[in-house]
Amino acid sequence: MKLKHVRNATMVLELGDQRILVDPMLGAKGSMDPFPNSAGNSTRNPTTDLAVPLAELIDVDVVVVTHIHLDHWDNAAASLLPRDVPLLVQNEADGKAISANGFSNVQVLKEPLRIGQTVFTRTAGQHGSDAVLATWPSLGEVSGVVINHPGEPSIYVAGDTVWNDQVNEALAEHRPDIVVLNTGEARLPDNSRLIMDAQEILEVHAAAPQARIVAVHMEALNHCVVTRAQVRALVREHQIAEHVLVPEDGEVLIF
Amino acid sequence: MKLKHVRNATMVLELGDQRILVDPMLGAKGSMDPFPNSAGNSTRNPTTDLAVPLAELIDVDVVVVTHIHLDHWDNAAASLLPRDVPLLVQNEADGKAISANGFSNVQVLKEPLRIGQTVFTRTAGQHGSDAVLATWPSLGEVSGVVINHPGEPSIYVAGDTVWNDQVNEALAEHRPDIVVLNTGEARLPDNSRLIMDAQEILEVHAAAPQARIVAVHMEALNHCVVTRAQVRALVREHQIAEHVLVPEDGEVLIF
Repeated sequence: MKLKHVRNATMVLELGDQRILVDPMLGAKGSMDPFPNSAGNSTRNPTTDLAVPLAELIDVDVVVVTHIHLDHWDNAAASLLPRDVPLLVQNEADGKAISANGFSNVQVLKEPLRIGQTVFTRTAGQHGSDAVLATWPSLGEVSGVVINHPGEPSIYVAGDTVWNDQVNEALAEHRPDIVVLNTGEARLPDNSRLIMDAQEILEVHAAAPQARIVAVHMEALNHCVVTRAQVRALVREHQIAEHVLVPEDGEVLIF
Repeated sequence: MKLKHVRNATMVLELGDQRILVDPMLGAKGSMDPFPNSAGNSTRNPTTDLAVPLAELIDVDVVVVTHIHLDHWDNAAASLLPRDVPLLVQNEADGKAISANGFSNVQVLKEPLRIGQTVFTRTAGQHGSDAVLATWPSLGEVSGVVINHPGEPSIYVAGDTVWNDQVNEALAEHRPDIVVLNTGEARLPDNSRLIMDAQEILEVHAAAPQARIVAVHMEALNHCVVTRAQVRALVREHQIAEHVLVPEDGEVLIF
């Protein structure tokens, strides 16, 4: 399996002869407003340029969108992807929003879905603590996805979730070889967070010590305050560096 | 001078060492709703794929936007172009709309403007007949542009206008070597039109017999009913075929 980390949560997986694009945010540096209510800064998003040629990201066999917040499905993605590409979404509402842009092959991941030899299974998650969601119900539903392909490692993309029972259960149920975590924190002014921070990598590692963890969703958005250097330092300190990969934008990981 | 016709009104001019992108509509086939009130059909727009690599269209020195209707400035363009590219617009309103996407170098073409060795001069136009504009005032203001570069042919991009005194005056004033006309007609159900039809090429040729005419803005949108074949047949019939070029998408013209 080849995993190309593109930027933030955007990546391309190559499994067999299939190219799978996850959570496309394809716009230029600064093409979106900053996220409000951030403990970070007010830089426009994305804060970095796309490090992978657009042509490569548009020519894919399947697209998975864990949820349609603009850092996972932006105007560029909605404008550029072929209208007939198979697009897997978490629920009817996201499917409807995406279909409104003329996409003709949108499928809701209610049950495990096979495309070619690859099986996609939706997992649950929560976009912030219970307290955060009580204050910001508009954050809405999120999902993760487990992707299985015969003869390849299994991969669990946790999505925009904090560490919680849902993640713990997904790890126990699917026993993935690879776990992709969004560890940028997305910190609010009261220091609560919308996604995982670096520290929660330790929880995931404790729950799934066999898995390789790939930490992403960092250094691309104004409100994501955790840096790659902080994650690397933490996992070295806890002597789990060999289990945790922190790819640069455009970096390819082979499993 | 190299003129690459991209699609619809989108083109790239190479003048000296400058690459100038005009009226970028960069989205995938079907990425926009059809234009309503069309005498054409209800196919989603654009009706054709982009025939030129995106990478080539984003790497430019200047962008000219004659007006911000979605077939001249789409979400893909607004998402993909570098935020600091010099962007020339017709008026403050268009400038404000584009700046809202984070573009930091938007300039209104009030007076002729020099960038490097190239001078850009705004021309006037009208997006339909007086009767059309009385019914559809929301069509709003449009512009054209004359582009001059020492040692190169001069080019007048008329923009989304019908044939009228403004076009006639621009031809007389600037005596361009090349005139780009949007001849797709954009027909309304009552058979009135928003831009030129094929027949108006004859008017332009009579007013500027020395000029080479490049006919574009055809076969890319649901409401543009004039075909390239119709234009070619008409100019052959009127024995002015050597004066009128009708490029295919992606075709390069050298002047």
